[in-house]
Amino acid sequence: MKNQVLQIFKIGGNVINNDDALNSFLKDFSTIKGPKILIHGGGKKATEVSSAMGLQPQMINGRRVTDEATVEVVTMVYAGLLNKKIVAQLQKNNCNAMGLSGADANCILAHKRIVKDIDYGFAGDIDAVNDIIIDVLLQNNLTPVFCAITHDKNGQLLNTNADTIASEIAVGMSKLYQTELNFVFELKGVLGNIEDKNSVITHINSEKHEQLVTQGIIADGMIPKIHNCFNALNKGVSKVKIGDASLVNSSNKLYTTLSL
Amino acid sequence: MKNQVLQIFKIGGNVINNDDALNSFLKDFSTIKGPKILIHGGGKKATEVSSAMGLQPQMINGRRVTDEATVEVVTMVYAGLLNKKIVAQLQKNNCNAMGLSGADANCILAHKRIVKDIDYGFAGDIDAVNDIIIDVLLQNNLTPVFCAITHDKNGQLLNTNADTIASEIAVGMSKLYQTELNFVFELKGVLGNIEDKNSVITHINSEKHEQLVTQGIIADGMIPKIHNCFNALNKGVSKVKIGDASLVNSSNKLYTTLSL
Repeated sequence: MKNQVLQIFKIGGNVINNDDALNSFLKDFSTIKGPKILIHGGGKKATEVSSAMGLQPQMINGRRVTDEATVEVVTMVYAGLLNKKIVAQLQKNNCNAMGLSGADANCILAHKRIVKDIDYGFAGDIDAVNDIIIDVLLQNNLTPVFCAITHDKNGQLLNTNADTIASEIAVGMSKLYQTELNFVFELKGVLGNIEDKNSVITHINSEKHEQLVTQGIIADGMIPKIHNCFNALNKGVSKVKIGDASLVNSSNKLYTTLSL
Repeated sequence: MKNQVLQIFKIGGNVINNDDALNSFLKDFSTIKGPKILIHGGGKKATEVSSAMGLQPQMINGRRVTDEATVEVVTMVYAGLLNKKIVAQLQKNNCNAMGLSGADANCILAHKRIVKDIDYGFAGDIDAVNDIIIDVLLQNNLTPVFCAITHDKNGQLLNTNADTIASEIAVGMSKLYQTELNFVFELKGVLGNIEDKNSVITHINSEKHEQLVTQGIIADGMIPKIHNCFNALNKGVSKVKIGDASLVNSSNKLYTTLSL
């Protein structure tokens, strides 16, 4: 079992916000042979719906503060509209997708983030991934598609960071599979020179990671992202790749691979 | 296998619109032993969100006309908010629920309703229920929770009548199980006297059905509802019950049972 490769992809707003980009990605994703899982973030639709509902999006340190009305909106948009649109497109491409939140089949158990300095409201921190039930789905040739909503098994839905969900699922499934985690974002990979979109550093190991942070080449928002990747590698994930939407296309060779 | 009873419940707006009524129903539903499926309709939330989004709900003959913006709203509200709220509550009650639309795992395949006199827009008429994959979930002690959204396997989500979904699932699963279909609505059952809420006709068979229609006791909106029930019975469903939310509570004895 452990020899079977499980491909996990996480896509964010930059792919989701553009129907053509999304459908093109999903078409390529559908052609991946073997077990696979997709995790998607939110995108601008949640902000659009929030505004229409008269809610003022509140952000602290780039993270959304999730009050009760906001958790309703993100549940609608992430678990409803985006998740089902993605599932319907994958079904069109003969990929037998099943859309899930963390509450479904108790796949991802979380708790409301503990308030230290900032109260992020109904934001979830993950406690457990139910690898057994996710494997039942994979064994039945289903492709789980997770949105960024979890629950606390006490009736509360929780808004949860999609990058973290992807990492935790990859770690959880690495008990059963050789898991490869792929983060799709707006750049072709980790750049050596921020001014040059093609200056992709193709391979980063732990040692190089430290160097790049010291040199300030990995900086700002990339620091937690890459930290998250190495955390996954340290906990059993075989390989992590970072790149743009063409990462899913096997003919693309320009991306960053991270390994220990 | 055919000897195992599968309990299917459909709940509508009258239960969904009231959080206390819904949570009480879900608590009772969670205690049902053996395989079970829940189907839920919409409720007033879709209208609330539509209005907030500046859409004018359009109804013809009591049915919602589903334009592109409306199918987005009902997908958000039914497949997102309501479905996940219900799943999270069931999880709280130790019922291992899995929320689904018809697109997920291609559970319910439909086509856009063919335009005769009236164009209902993106309204779905059901072609097939995937009894095999639904049974995989049941065999793994999961409780499928379906919202009233299906798909056409060509990327289009479709707004679909929840009563019809419940009937079609019951019919589809009756190949594998002895299925019992329970419709929860606002009354205690089919009433002999519309002025008396307790005048429940406890048993209706095909012969009595004809009599009651001739006598005008089954009239108006009850005609298609009961017709739908007998359609299910004719196609293999063992038993159909109609009653209010206490139908799920085994101590309740006042409801209408329909059989051939």
